[in-house]
Amino acid sequence: MRKLLLFLLVTSALTVKAQDEKTDLDIINKIIKEGTANSQIMDIAFHLTDVSGPRLTNSPGYFRAANYAVTQLKKWGADKAGLEAWGDFGQGWQLKKSYIAMTAPYYKPIMAFPKTWTQSTKGLVKADVVVINVKDSTELAQYKGKLAGKVVLVNRVDEYKHSFKPDANRYTDDELKKMADFKPNPQPQGPGGNQQNFARFGAAQRLNTLIKQMITEEGAAAYLTSSPASHDGTIFVQGPAGNRVDFTNGKPSVLEIAVSFEDIKTINRLVNMGTTVSLDLDVQSEFTGSDVKGYNVIGEIKGTDPKLKDEVVMLGAHLDSWQGSTGATDNASGCAVMLEVMRIFKTLNLQPKRTIRIALWSGEEQGLLGSRGWIKNNVGDRVTKDVKPEQGKISAYYNIDNGTGKIRGVYLEGNSAVQPIFAKWLEPFHSVGASTLTLQNTGGTDHISFNELGIPGFQFIQDEIEYDTRTHHTTMDSYDHLVPDDLKQMATIVATFVYNTAQRAEKLPRKEMPKPAPVRQ
Amino acid sequence: MRKLLLFLLVTSALTVKAQDEKTDLDIINKIIKEGTANSQIMDIAFHLTDVSGPRLTNSPGYFRAANYAVTQLKKWGADKAGLEAWGDFGQGWQLKKSYIAMTAPYYKPIMAFPKTWTQSTKGLVKADVVVINVKDSTELAQYKGKLAGKVVLVNRVDEYKHSFKPDANRYTDDELKKMADFKPNPQPQGPGGNQQNFARFGAAQRLNTLIKQMITEEGAAAYLTSSPASHDGTIFVQGPAGNRVDFTNGKPSVLEIAVSFEDIKTINRLVNMGTTVSLDLDVQSEFTGSDVKGYNVIGEIKGTDPKLKDEVVMLGAHLDSWQGSTGATDNASGCAVMLEVMRIFKTLNLQPKRTIRIALWSGEEQGLLGSRGWIKNNVGDRVTKDVKPEQGKISAYYNIDNGTGKIRGVYLEGNSAVQPIFAKWLEPFHSVGASTLTLQNTGGTDHISFNELGIPGFQFIQDEIEYDTRTHHTTMDSYDHLVPDDLKQMATIVATFVYNTAQRAEKLPRKEMPKPAPVRQ
Repeated sequence: MRKLLLFLLVTSALTVKAQDEKTDLDIINKIIKEGTANSQIMDIAFHLTDVSGPRLTNSPGYFRAANYAVTQLKKWGADKAGLEAWGDFGQGWQLKKSYIAMTAPYYKPIMAFPKTWTQSTKGLVKADVVVINVKDSTELAQYKGKLAGKVVLVNRVDEYKHSFKPDANRYTDDELKKMADFKPNPQPQGPGGNQQNFARFGAAQRLNTLIKQMITEEGAAAYLTSSPASHDGTIFVQGPAGNRVDFTNGKPSVLEIAVSFEDIKTINRLVNMGTTVSLDLDVQSEFTGSDVKGYNVIGEIKGTDPKLKDEVVMLGAHLDSWQGSTGATDNASGCAVMLEVMRIFKTLNLQPKRTIRIALWSGEEQGLLGSRGWIKNNVGDRVTKDVKPEQGKISAYYNIDNGTGKIRGVYLEGNSAVQPIFAKWLEPFHSVGASTLTLQNTGGTDHISFNELGIPGFQFIQDEIEYDTRTHHTTMDSYDHLVPDDLKQMATIVATFVYNTAQRAEKLPRKEMPKPAPVRQ
Repeated sequence: MRKLLLFLLVTSALTVKAQDEKTDLDIINKIIKEGTANSQIMDIAFHLTDVSGPRLTNSPGYFRAANYAVTQLKKWGADKAGLEAWGDFGQGWQLKKSYIAMTAPYYKPIMAFPKTWTQSTKGLVKADVVVINVKDSTELAQYKGKLAGKVVLVNRVDEYKHSFKPDANRYTDDELKKMADFKPNPQPQGPGGNQQNFARFGAAQRLNTLIKQMITEEGAAAYLTSSPASHDGTIFVQGPAGNRVDFTNGKPSVLEIAVSFEDIKTINRLVNMGTTVSLDLDVQSEFTGSDVKGYNVIGEIKGTDPKLKDEVVMLGAHLDSWQGSTGATDNASGCAVMLEVMRIFKTLNLQPKRTIRIALWSGEEQGLLGSRGWIKNNVGDRVTKDVKPEQGKISAYYNIDNGTGKIRGVYLEGNSAVQPIFAKWLEPFHSVGASTLTLQNTGGTDHISFNELGIPGFQFIQDEIEYDTRTHHTTMDSYDHLVPDDLKQMATIVATFVYNTAQRAEKLPRKEMPKPAPVRQ
């Protein structure tokens, strides 16, 4: 996911005071001990990353990880664990071969990674590079008839920026204080001063769409692009450029390849000086499986209190990743934390009053598809706001999807009534850096699917570490980029929040149900 | 090169005062204007990097760059410009294909780069991975008979370190002050407290040598290693591990591949858990050329003063690089600066009193071979210290080989008599950050070849930028990692130093000739 601060709805005045909250420090200390001294989180993370491989939704890697999760939940003694279809996604996709090299004017391996759902080459293809250098669609016409069989890139004028700032970061006390002091703006912000930027962006987008259309129609061998995040050997790579691909139809679009900034600029400069640049391309990928339904992993530990056991505390994270690496920080970290929480519950035999339900979602990277599908099947319709009884039974949903950094606090999503409750719950974790509550919300991931239907869904504030600089949707999102001690801290805090929510006399306070409104599908 | 602080010989007391030095500010201002407003340095750098390709000594890329340099020197009007043999090196070597991927337990492209002078595969080879995990040579015996046709790596226990410090750095005022305040220690330091470390290092080295010997004898498919510098997609790669290869015999050693830390650890963990890890390898390289002599580029602008024109000011940098990229900061940057200095001299028609001689060396990365060969042919014997008349005619040698960062001052190599002279010469450059003189010396590159025979040879203090963190001997040492403004500043300072040395009434003061002593060949 990519976080995004959104405007928010303010909830009613505080009705709960921190001193009223009762917590069981004995249990919390057991959780901390089990999650620290006996942690299995790195072994879980290893299986979700190295052992499973990339976990693009419905790919074999996704199912390896999903089946591992189910097996572990059963092994630990969960009362329920299995794959659950949420709706139609489309086939899986996986890379079978990727060989990309410059062969003229001299040999050079090209640092690059093919984009999901794009075409294979017919074996090893040799192709010269054409650089499209145009200001507008009129100028684009000069390339008509010249792109068949060529490798195409669009002229780049931006420059490499040396990193005088660290790749890895933790929140400073000042930054956390600013988050804590945040006061929500009740007025949603319009485009305002950004209108001009939107217009420029729109024109560039339209030109890019026309370029991609021409590349496709002419039958180019491949379309090379490079994100500003693709430097130093790290490649940022996900789906094809431009309009969102229809990944449900099993028809790949023109081969697109994400290339390192250094290599695309070298090729670009050589072509611009009049040199013939030739590439060898051998890219093979395949659509996988015949079942187009998408599947989440759902597991449960049944509640033990006769009056409360039908109520539910949910915890979750998306299990799917992009293809460039094994999605360690996006989001094996979140899944490993949630699985470790389930292990801690069963190992300590915690006997929660309410039912605990874990959900590992698929299709998050394509638009929260797995969580929204599950919500639609079980909770209600996010457009009409018609709900089923389950909507009233889920006390809270806790999500992790901000990378590998330890928890520093919670985004309250404007739900100020939970502030004193969470303040109390965080007390045992002040010493490990988690004490900040902010009314800010954070978009882009699966807690939204719950908030959309009035169920309190929360994301945690986590240290960035290398999320924005190195790992997010890149070839570097691998096991070694995880921070073990941070993951352990996360598991103990989430387990505590889940336990406290399960044992609490009342469900967590809710914001008002959002009004039904046209929602962009 | 890699810089290394060495113990040093202290020169005699100061004999020159800064106020006695005469400089021509009018000329210096012309140099600054030409090197800044009319700079061609990035075009030169482009031709040495992107256009030429990797410049391993005697490879086609080396000769493309060397011939370009000769052509430019002639075009600018140098009185002499050509390739000059310095002795035997051996054949060139270049990569023709590199495809390395994991195919089981799932498909994953492996970030890796073959090492120089190592073998090709016989087409596409499929091989399983064996991890050697031993404490000593006794344990190593268990692998005998098990390595034929396998890909081998040695078990790694080190861990990825997240970068909480910036990749790119400039010297702070404090750091520069410490360098300026440096007082040489007249006593060379013995191994002292480091003896234990040396012993441990020695044992590890011996074990590694045995491992490599076994890998070679058994006929392994490939030997994978990873430097701690190979992370985030950046691969550190040069020659084979262990003993220095005999690169003059044209016989490649067992295929060795430098692998990213993330990928080698993933493979290592999977094998350690009992998973069969299979790789596809298709690595093709070739030895190039039949002429085994090594060649430097030598160019001259003749002196114009009847009494001084037989004396020489030399400037140089090594033109050869390793193979992983195009050696932008090691050392196209130094060569581009020195060529730009020659261009500035000819464009401004500076008419130096003494002769200006540029030398772009080869074989530096294999032990300063080009500069030492040239010195042996023209100046004297570094072992016996027997010298030819030329030794007395070279006033100074200026070298650039500390990356792309701008000049902050000069390493005086213990030659304190030049301190007041250089202090005066740096005055016009205080405003652009160059004002530090340190008695420290810095090893590892071609100025040593001159100092060994009593000729004042200097390296400049340069900002590190990403030299140690990203570019030194890596796949990231490419054009985009250069800093244009820094290169321009360097050219203006070096041109000024060369001009001032050429015009000065006397040659620069010298340290005593080092005593003849056994030198490790």
